[in-house]
Amino acid sequence: MSKKWVYFFDEVAKAEEYVGGDWEKVRGLLGGKGANLAEMERIGVPVPPGYTVTTEACNAYLDAGETYPEGLNEQMLESLKTVETKTGKKFGDPQNPLLVSCRSGAKFSMPGMMDTVLNIGLNDETIKGMIALTGDERFVYDLYRRLIQMFGSVVMLAPGEDFEEVLTEARAKAGVETDTELNAEDWKAVAEEFKAIFKRHTGRDFPTDPYEQLNLATAAVFKSWFGKRAVDYRNAAGIAHDLGTAVNIQTMVFGNLGNDSATGVALTRNGTTGEHRIEGDYLMNAQGEDVVAGIRLTEDINKLKEEMPAAYGEFEQICQKLEKHYREMQDVEFTIEKNKLWMLQTRDGKRTAQAAVRIAVEMVEEGMITREEAVMRVTPAQIDFFLHPQFDREAVKAAKAKGDMLGSGLNVSPGAAFGVVALDADLAEKWAKEEGRDVIMVRPETRPDDVHGMLAAQGILTSRGGRTSHAALVARQFGKPAVVGMSALEIDLDKRQISVGGLVIKEGEWISIDGTEGELYTGKLPTEVPEFEDPELMKLLSWADEFRKLGVWANADYPADAQRALKYGAEGIGLCRTEHMFFEAERMPFVQKMIMTDNADERKEALDALLPFQREDFAGLFRVMDGLPVIIRLIDPPLNEFLPSESDLLRELCDLKLQLKDAGAPEEIDKLQKQIEDKELILKRVESLHETNPMLGMRGVRLAIHIPELTTMQVRAIFEAACTVAKEGVDVHPEIMIPLTSHVNELKVQQEVLEAEAKKVMEEQGIEPHYKFGTMIEIPRAAITCDQIAEYAQFISFGTNDLTQTTFGISRDDAEASFLIEYLEREILPENPFAVIDRDGVGFLMEMAVKKGRAVRPDMECGICGEHGGDPESIQLCHELDLTYVSCSPFRVPVARLAAAHAALRDKIKD
Amino acid sequence: MSKKWVYFFDEVAKAEEYVGGDWEKVRGLLGGKGANLAEMERIGVPVPPGYTVTTEACNAYLDAGETYPEGLNEQMLESLKTVETKTGKKFGDPQNPLLVSCRSGAKFSMPGMMDTVLNIGLNDETIKGMIALTGDERFVYDLYRRLIQMFGSVVMLAPGEDFEEVLTEARAKAGVETDTELNAEDWKAVAEEFKAIFKRHTGRDFPTDPYEQLNLATAAVFKSWFGKRAVDYRNAAGIAHDLGTAVNIQTMVFGNLGNDSATGVALTRNGTTGEHRIEGDYLMNAQGEDVVAGIRLTEDINKLKEEMPAAYGEFEQICQKLEKHYREMQDVEFTIEKNKLWMLQTRDGKRTAQAAVRIAVEMVEEGMITREEAVMRVTPAQIDFFLHPQFDREAVKAAKAKGDMLGSGLNVSPGAAFGVVALDADLAEKWAKEEGRDVIMVRPETRPDDVHGMLAAQGILTSRGGRTSHAALVARQFGKPAVVGMSALEIDLDKRQISVGGLVIKEGEWISIDGTEGELYTGKLPTEVPEFEDPELMKLLSWADEFRKLGVWANADYPADAQRALKYGAEGIGLCRTEHMFFEAERMPFVQKMIMTDNADERKEALDALLPFQREDFAGLFRVMDGLPVIIRLIDPPLNEFLPSESDLLRELCDLKLQLKDAGAPEEIDKLQKQIEDKELILKRVESLHETNPMLGMRGVRLAIHIPELTTMQVRAIFEAACTVAKEGVDVHPEIMIPLTSHVNELKVQQEVLEAEAKKVMEEQGIEPHYKFGTMIEIPRAAITCDQIAEYAQFISFGTNDLTQTTFGISRDDAEASFLIEYLEREILPENPFAVIDRDGVGFLMEMAVKKGRAVRPDMECGICGEHGGDPESIQLCHELDLTYVSCSPFRVPVARLAAAHAALRDKIKD
Repeated sequence: MSKKWVYFFDEVAKAEEYVGGDWEKVRGLLGGKGANLAEMERIGVPVPPGYTVTTEACNAYLDAGETYPEGLNEQMLESLKTVETKTGKKFGDPQNPLLVSCRSGAKFSMPGMMDTVLNIGLNDETIKGMIALTGDERFVYDLYRRLIQMFGSVVMLAPGEDFEEVLTEARAKAGVETDTELNAEDWKAVAEEFKAIFKRHTGRDFPTDPYEQLNLATAAVFKSWFGKRAVDYRNAAGIAHDLGTAVNIQTMVFGNLGNDSATGVALTRNGTTGEHRIEGDYLMNAQGEDVVAGIRLTEDINKLKEEMPAAYGEFEQICQKLEKHYREMQDVEFTIEKNKLWMLQTRDGKRTAQAAVRIAVEMVEEGMITREEAVMRVTPAQIDFFLHPQFDREAVKAAKAKGDMLGSGLNVSPGAAFGVVALDADLAEKWAKEEGRDVIMVRPETRPDDVHGMLAAQGILTSRGGRTSHAALVARQFGKPAVVGMSALEIDLDKRQISVGGLVIKEGEWISIDGTEGELYTGKLPTEVPEFEDPELMKLLSWADEFRKLGVWANADYPADAQRALKYGAEGIGLCRTEHMFFEAERMPFVQKMIMTDNADERKEALDALLPFQREDFAGLFRVMDGLPVIIRLIDPPLNEFLPSESDLLRELCDLKLQLKDAGAPEEIDKLQKQIEDKELILKRVESLHETNPMLGMRGVRLAIHIPELTTMQVRAIFEAACTVAKEGVDVHPEIMIPLTSHVNELKVQQEVLEAEAKKVMEEQGIEPHYKFGTMIEIPRAAITCDQIAEYAQFISFGTNDLTQTTFGISRDDAEASFLIEYLEREILPENPFAVIDRDGVGFLMEMAVKKGRAVRPDMECGICGEHGGDPESIQLCHELDLTYVSCSPFRVPVARLAAAHAALRDKIKD
Repeated sequence: MSKKWVYFFDEVAKAEEYVGGDWEKVRGLLGGKGANLAEMERIGVPVPPGYTVTTEACNAYLDAGETYPEGLNEQMLESLKTVETKTGKKFGDPQNPLLVSCRSGAKFSMPGMMDTVLNIGLNDETIKGMIALTGDERFVYDLYRRLIQMFGSVVMLAPGEDFEEVLTEARAKAGVETDTELNAEDWKAVAEEFKAIFKRHTGRDFPTDPYEQLNLATAAVFKSWFGKRAVDYRNAAGIAHDLGTAVNIQTMVFGNLGNDSATGVALTRNGTTGEHRIEGDYLMNAQGEDVVAGIRLTEDINKLKEEMPAAYGEFEQICQKLEKHYREMQDVEFTIEKNKLWMLQTRDGKRTAQAAVRIAVEMVEEGMITREEAVMRVTPAQIDFFLHPQFDREAVKAAKAKGDMLGSGLNVSPGAAFGVVALDADLAEKWAKEEGRDVIMVRPETRPDDVHGMLAAQGILTSRGGRTSHAALVARQFGKPAVVGMSALEIDLDKRQISVGGLVIKEGEWISIDGTEGELYTGKLPTEVPEFEDPELMKLLSWADEFRKLGVWANADYPADAQRALKYGAEGIGLCRTEHMFFEAERMPFVQKMIMTDNADERKEALDALLPFQREDFAGLFRVMDGLPVIIRLIDPPLNEFLPSESDLLRELCDLKLQLKDAGAPEEIDKLQKQIEDKELILKRVESLHETNPMLGMRGVRLAIHIPELTTMQVRAIFEAACTVAKEGVDVHPEIMIPLTSHVNELKVQQEVLEAEAKKVMEEQGIEPHYKFGTMIEIPRAAITCDQIAEYAQFISFGTNDLTQTTFGISRDDAEASFLIEYLEREILPENPFAVIDRDGVGFLMEMAVKKGRAVRPDMECGICGEHGGDPESIQLCHELDLTYVSCSPFRVPVARLAAAHAALRDKIKD
C-alpha cells in the first residue's frame, strides 16, 4: 500500500496519529492553513469540504524530479469523490459542477509561494450548468475569466499585464469606468481573449479538463516551494528548506450569490486596544477578495448583526469556540452563501503592544490561559513600546481617512516622530542644532558620513536598504525612529523635494514617520508616550516578577533617577557612576583644580571642596533606596575627560595669537598675553595627560592607585552619607565597586586603602552600616582570573560595554561610526555586540568568571551593569549564567522584568 | 636512641642513606658548605677534621624555643672527641689545644646569616700552650683578640665600632699605621680591652670555657636563621623558611705560621675566558681573611708553583679531582700550614658568559659532562651577553689598575656604555638629540617625567633605588645599560657635578658604566660587541638545536634582516610586517596619496605604484629564505599612522597664519595661502581618520575589509614575487597572515577575496607555489573562538603584544611610561607582562586557543610573533603549550634556541 499523501479535513486524528500527536508536527505535515481547516472541522465549525495534500507529498514530488509519487493521483481522485458525495456536486459535471480552490499552505507563511487559484472545475461545459443553477450569466462568466486569468498568470506564469490590458480595453469598449459595470457579454468576450493570451504564452489551449486543471495547479504549488523569493526568504529567516508546502483543495463557496450572501474578515478581539469584542469588515453579495482588495467600501461587522442576525449569531458562537479552542485571539475569514455560514480560515490574530498586554491579562481573568502563558505571550519589544512616543491613535485614523498616509516601508526602529524634511546630513544637523527645528532626515540610503545628521534628526527615512542597512542599524543603535527601504519614495536632490505617488513634499515641509509600523504621513502628527502605568501592564509585570529568578536593578546616578527606577520596579541600584557628579557646573572648577595642580595641599583643598557635594549625592540615593542595595562605582574615566581637548586648545590659542597681532592698545595686549599664558598652561597639562588609547590607559583602579586621595575622598563621602542616613533610620546597603580591575593585586591594594578610610569614618560616626566591597569585571583578564579576584571581592558586576570592547579589541566610540556598521550590513557580525552580548566570546568569559568566582566564594553576588542589562537576549544569557541581577537604565527596567520572567519560564518549559 | 643530629665529615654516606641518596637532600640536611666538606673528605681531599650539625638540629632547636634537642649536646661532645683523636689535640687542653671554627651553612647561601667565628677554644690557659707550640706570642694574641672580637660582635651582638675604636687607639699609642705593625704586647693589651668591652655590653665575662664558646656560637648560628635580613631575603627569593641552617665545626689550620705556610683562593678554570687553567691568588704566611680583605697585595697562583712546588702539585691534582668529581668548575679555598695542604671549601665557581660557554663546551669535549648538561649550564642571559656591547677587557683591567673604577651599584640592565654626565632628562635629551652626544643620564632616582631623557641616553646611573626601581625597570624595558642604587655616588644638582669618594666629575665630563657588572668608571672606556661567531657558542647552540622541540623563527621585514636571522640560526620568518615597507621615503608619497583620495581610480593608481616595491621586498625575502617558510602579515596599523599628527598640523597651520599676517608681497601671500589650503586639506583628512582609541580601531583585518584594494595589492605582490622567485628555482613557502581577527567571519570574508586574487596571479604566472592562509591571534575573542577560526586558518600566530594589551586592557604606549612602571615598583604586578607572558591571563588564553584550534585542525601550525618570542620564561611557556615555533627579533634568535632547548631538557629531567 502506498503512503497516505492526502488527508480529508475530517482526518486530523489520523494525521495526529501518524506524526505522534504533536500539534506542531501536524502543522508540519498539513501546513498551517490545512491544519487549522482540519481542526475547525474536528470541533464542528462549518468548513466547506476539502482535503490537504501533505508536505511529504510535496517533498516526494520534488525529490522525484517533479513527478507525483506513487498513489498520490489515486488518493486525490478518491478524496474528490468524497467531496462530491458531501456536496452532492460532481467535478466536471455540466449539470451540477463542483468548483474547488487550490491554495498553498506551508508550516510557516512566506512570500513567493503560489497564489490561490479559485474556481477550478469551470470550462465551456460546466459554466452552462453553473448559469442554470445560479441564473446569473454575468457572475459565471466573471468566475470563468478569473479562473483563466489566475491559471494563466499564477500556474503558467503568463505576464499579468497582458490580462490587465484586455480588461482596460474591454472597459473602454463598453464605455464604463469599473469592472462591476461590465455585463455578461463583456465577460464572455474577455474570457475568450484570455484564452487567446493563454495560448500565445503557453503554446497550448487553456486546459478544459477539470482534472488537468487541478493537477497542474497542485504541481505548481509544489514547484513554488523552490521559487527564488521563497528560497531567499527561508535563507534570511532561518527556515529549513526541507519542510515543503502542503496544498489545500476546497469546495468553492460564494458570498456573491445575492443579498442572502456575504463575505468578511474579523478578529475575535480588538487588535488595537485588545477590547473583548469582535472587530471586522464584511461585504454583502461579494467575494472574499473584494473585501481585501478594497474595491468596495466595507461595512463594520456590527452591521451584520442587524442584516443577518441568525448567521451573525452563529458566527459569534464560532468565534468564541475558536478562541476557546485555540486559547488565543483569532483572525478569521468567512463566507455566507445563501444564509449558510462557512469558515474559510482561522489563525492567531495580529495585535498592537497594548492589545497584546490587555488580551493576555484578560484571558487569564477569563480563565482561558495561565499567568505563565500570559507572561510568555507578551514580548519584551511590546513592553518597550510603552516607553516610546507613538502617534495619537485618533490622529492616525483621521490622517488615514484623509489620505495623508503616503505609504509604508520597513519598520526598522520603533517609535514615532515628526519633523521637516532635510535631504542631507549637514542641513539636518544645522536645522536641528542651530535653529532648534525638528527634522526628519530623508536620504536614498545613508553612509558613515551621514551619522552626524542622523544623530541630530528626530527620525530617519530612506528609499533604499533593508533591515540591516546602515540607516537601520544606526537608527536602532541610537534609538531614532526609522522607516527604510520605502521604494515608492522618490527623492529629487536637485529640486530638493521628495514625492510619493505624485504627491510632492518640499525640503523643509512637515512629514511624520511611524517606525513601529513602518508608515509615512504627510504633515505633523501629534505624538504621545503611552501610559506606562497601564493597569493591565502593571498586572502582567507583577506576574512576571513572580516567575523570574534574576533580580532587576537599575543604573542611576542621581536620586531622581533612582526614584524613576523604583517606580519602574527596580530592586536596587547596580551602578552609580560617581564621576557623572563631577561634571556639574559648580563642581567642575574644583575637579579641574585638582587635575591642574602638582601640589599635594592644593589637591587636598580641591578634594575637600568636592566632598560635601558627593556626600549629598550619595545621601540622596540612600534615602530613596531605603532597604535596597546601592552599588557605587569609584571614579572611572581618565582625568583628561575633565579638561578641554588638545585640538580645541590649539585652535583657541591660534585665534588668540592672531588677535594679538592685530591688537593695539597696551591693556588689550596685556589681556591677550595673559589669556595665552593661561591656555598654554592648560595645554601643557592636557599634553602631559595625553594618552594614545585612553580607553586602555590611566583610568579606573589605575587612577585610584595613582591618586589615592581621590578615592579616599569618595569612600569618605560614601560612608559619611551612609552613616548619616542610617542615623535617620534609613536602611542603607552601600556596595563599593572598583572599576577596571585586571589583576587581583589591584583589588588587594585598593581594598586596604579603602577599608581603612571606611573604618575611620565609621568610628568617627559611631555607627557601622553593613557594606560590601567588590569590583567590575570588564577586562578579559579579570574574568579569566575571577577565582583569584573572588578572594577579595564580595561581589562582581560585569561591565559588558568595556568587556566587549576589550574582548573584541573594538573601541566602541570609533567602531559604531565606522567598521562596526559595515560589519553588520555585510553580516560579518550577526549582531551588534554592544547591543546583544556576544555569547561565544564575551558570554564565554562571563560564564568562566561566574564559575571560577563562585567556586571560591559560593555566595558571591554576580550582576551586570553594562547596557546589555536591558536587552532581552542578553538577559536570557544572564539567567542561564545564574547571575544575581541585571542592572539597566530605569527606562529598560520593565522590559528587563519581563525578559527575566521569560528566561525563567523557558526553563520550566524545558523541564 | 635520639636522632642523629651531627655528621662527622666522613659520614656523608650515612647522611645519604638517611635522606635516601639524593644529593640535593644531603645539601638540605648538611647545608651547602657542610655537604661539600663531607664530599671532599669522602673523595680523599685533605680537609681539616670536623663535623656538621644538621639543619634538622637547627629546626628542632628553634621549634623547642631555643633549646638543644635531646642528644645534640652528647653528639657534639662525641664528635669533638673524634676530632681530638684525629688531630692529636685536645679541646681546652692548655698544652696542645684544639682550636675550631664555627660557620653557618644553609642549603642556599644568603645574607644575614651569622658570620664565621674562628679560633674557638682559646682562653687565657690555652693560649699558653699555643705560644709554646708555635713559638709566636704575637700570632697567638692576635688570634685571641680576634676570637673575643668576633665572638663579641657576631655571637653576642656587641657594636663592632667599639672594638675598632680600641684598635685605632692601640695603633696611635704604638705610633704605627697598620695592625701588622703591632707587637705581642700590643695585642695582649688589646685582648684585655676587648674583654672589657665584652663585659660592658653583655653583662658577663668573656666565656673562657671552650665548650661554652662552642655552644654559644652554635646557638647563635641557629638563631640567625630568623634574623631580619635572612627572612627578608628568603621572602624575596622565594626560599622556604623551614629549611634551617647547618653549623660546621672544623679544626683550625693556619696559613700564617711562617714561610712554609700560605693561604689562597682559586678557580679551577679561568672565570673570565673559561680557559682550562687554574686562576687564583694567594699570600705567603697569611690567614684566609687577609686574601679576601685585600689588606696585602696578593700573588698570582702561578707563582706558588715556583714557591711551593710540592704543595702546588698536590693542589693542582686536587683541583682536577674536584672538577672531575663535581663535573663543574670549582671555586676553592685552601691553606698550607707548614707545607701541609688543607682544602677549606669548594663550590661551583662564578664565571662570565663567555667562560660559561667555553667551560661547558670543553667539559663535553673532555668527556666530563654530556651535551645536555652543557646546554643546561649556560643561561639564556649568558647568550644575551654575546649580543650586548661590553667594555674591552684589557681597557677594564687598565682602568682598574689606574684606579678609574669608582665603585659599583646594582647591575640592573646589562651592557656597557659611555657618555657625558647629564643631570636631568631635558638636558640629556637635548645633548643626545640636538648635539648628537653620547650621554649617561645620572639622577638620584628617576620618575615618569624622566623617561624621555632615559630614552635619549646611552645609559642610566642612579644613587638610589633597587632592582625594581623606576630606573631599573625602564632601563631594562628599553635595553639601556644601567647601574642603580650606587650609594657612594653623590649628586650635587646645584654645582652640577657628581662625586664618588671625593673624586668630582662635572656635568658634561665622560663616565662609563657597566650594567652587566654594575660598575662605574671615570673616562671613556671603549666598548665592543663580543664575537657572536664564537666557535664554542656555535657548538653549544648546535647542540641546543638537537634537543629543542620548538622551532625558532625570526621577525624580519627586509632581506637584510632575514639574512641576519639565518646567520643566527632562524628556521623561518614568523612575521614580516608589510607596512614597515610603506614608511620608506620613496614610497610614502604613494601611501599618502592613497589615503588622501576618495577617488577609486586615484587610489588604484597609488596602489599600482606601490605594487612593484612590495613585490621586490617579498622576492628578496623569498630568495634569502630558500626552502623555509615566510609569514607575511597584511597591513596592520590604522591609516593615520602614515599622516602627520593633528596637533602638529594645527601648530604648523597657526605658524603659517601668523606669517600671513606679516606678509607683504602678493606672491608671498599667494604662497602662504596655498600652503594653508594644502595643510587644511590634510588636516581635514586626519580629523576624519581620527580615532579615540586607534589601537582598537580601524586597523588590521578591519581596514582590509574596508579597503579591499589595499590587501588585494599586497596579495598580488606576494604571489607575483613567489611565482617569479619559484621560477628561478627557489623553494618558496609564503604564508599569508591576517592581523587582528576577532570573529571567524572576518577571516572567511578575507579568505575569499585573497584566495581569488592569489589564484588569478598563479594562473597568470602558470605556476602554483605552495602557500598557507592563517591569522594572528591577538584579540581575546579570537583565542576563545579558535575552534571556529581553525575551520579557515591553516596556521595561527600569537601576537602577544596586542593580546597582552587587550587581555589586560592596557595600552602599552601609555602604560609603560606611567602606571605600569608604578605597578612594577609597587609589586602590584609581579612582572612586566609585555616582557614576560602573563601565564594566568594571556597564557590561559593561548592554551585555550591551541587546544580548541588543534581539536578542529590537529596539524595546525601554532606560533608566536610577539616580542615575548625572545624571552626565555615565555619560551618555556610556549614549549609547554606545544607551539610549533617562536619567532623573535633576529638578535634574540640565539637566546631563543637555547631557551627552547632548556624547556625540552626540563621535560626530560622531569620524566
